[in-house]
Amino acid sequence: MENEVIYGKNSVMEALISGKREINKILISKNIHTDVKINKIKELAQEKGIVFQFVGKDKFQPYAEFNHQGIIAQISPIEYMELDDFIEKPGEKYRSLVILDGVEDVHNLGAIIRTCVCAGVDGIVIPSRRNVQVNSVVEKTSAGAINHIPIIKVNSLVNAVQKLKDNDWWVIATDASAKDNYYDVKYDDMNFAIIMGAEHAGVSKSLLKASDFVVKIPMQNSFNSLNVSNALSAIIFETLRQRLKSNK
Amino acid sequence: MENEVIYGKNSVMEALISGKREINKILISKNIHTDVKINKIKELAQEKGIVFQFVGKDKFQPYAEFNHQGIIAQISPIEYMELDDFIEKPGEKYRSLVILDGVEDVHNLGAIIRTCVCAGVDGIVIPSRRNVQVNSVVEKTSAGAINHIPIIKVNSLVNAVQKLKDNDWWVIATDASAKDNYYDVKYDDMNFAIIMGAEHAGVSKSLLKASDFVVKIPMQNSFNSLNVSNALSAIIFETLRQRLKSNK
Repeated sequence: MENEVIYGKNSVMEALISGKREINKILISKNIHTDVKINKIKELAQEKGIVFQFVGKDKFQPYAEFNHQGIIAQISPIEYMELDDFIEKPGEKYRSLVILDGVEDVHNLGAIIRTCVCAGVDGIVIPSRRNVQVNSVVEKTSAGAINHIPIIKVNSLVNAVQKLKDNDWWVIATDASAKDNYYDVKYDDMNFAIIMGAEHAGVSKSLLKASDFVVKIPMQNSFNSLNVSNALSAIIFETLRQRLKSNK
Repeated sequence: MENEVIYGKNSVMEALISGKREINKILISKNIHTDVKINKIKELAQEKGIVFQFVGKDKFQPYAEFNHQGIIAQISPIEYMELDDFIEKPGEKYRSLVILDGVEDVHNLGAIIRTCVCAGVDGIVIPSRRNVQVNSVVEKTSAGAINHIPIIKVNSLVNAVQKLKDNDWWVIATDASAKDNYYDVKYDDMNFAIIMGAEHAGVSKSLLKASDFVVKIPMQNSFNSLNVSNALSAIIFETLRQRLKSNK
């Protein structure tokens, strides 16, 4: 699926004001005259930290049939969920989350989304910065899984972790130097969130500190570079194994 | 790393006769005259089922500094191991294998190799046909893991499975419609091989039939399209968990 696009000054401005759909980028033709509306759009975009690009006419070629007035906004193909809404949602069962701290590769994100859906994870939390966003490539790589799980976007992962803990969730971070193995934690009688780090940097120190547990995958080789989606798969299916065994 | 290349009639012929290094493809210039040696090379290549391509001069541009005589063979960057040699190799511990039945995506193969190395799998078996081969892309995607695990290439997976069973190995195939879950098998007191199927087709019927166990990953969603490397990761780290827990 393509990124969706909003055309024309009024539509773009409304999208900016309502904030309902995530705007990835605003493209504006170099050839149009700046007027009050355009200035207002620029101002709003700046306030919200949305990228604003001046581009040549050719960029608008694909949208020639629409009355785009020389301005379009590329919006995210998915709607993000608010963490508060997720937490408050009543559940009969214990729930689980996966928190991604700086995952940069779109294919990894797609594979992670598929894995989470298959393993019955209830949501995925990503930060609004320093993490790959859910774009059309991710959507494609996820093979449609993206439509089966809420994606929760937060400004601060540390605040999100604190909020989860305040709401009776347990937070487990992964780190290569942890003492405990991931399967030493009991996952079957609590709401839990697993934090996976960036491919190279791992989970940030502030998040490790904020977590209830820090666990590792026991590596059997000095070559210990496990792909983040494969690491997650090992852990998340262990949590599922425990839950299915105990029927909770 | 690039695919390695062998230049010139004599070297290509020797490589074909010795069979020590896997030849992926032979390229021959459209502009050279066919002689006895070229005919012999063609004959040997056909016997061994090696692709033989007539190409324009420009394909030889990168090798201009070598005396290529209008013929080059692209050889595999790795040396494959024979299954017999693998089986006979004495081991103090129980060993494990992963068998790939028709995995087509190079990135998946790279991720699978990394996962296997991290989880301490002792070897990977691939069929010589209908499976992605270990080329330079796989080598790159595996992030170097390829140098830490033997790759065993066999002409027939069914024969390989039979041979393993004859040598006191247990063979476990994965299939979405299996009754047992992968974690219901005890992996800690046997040599075992896990068969993973192609992304869409799964493990072939003849292999399912030849296996000792058929297991599934319990899917929690009607969307049940787990990436093959993530499926393997769930299973292989469960086998490791069991072994580390029981210390065998």
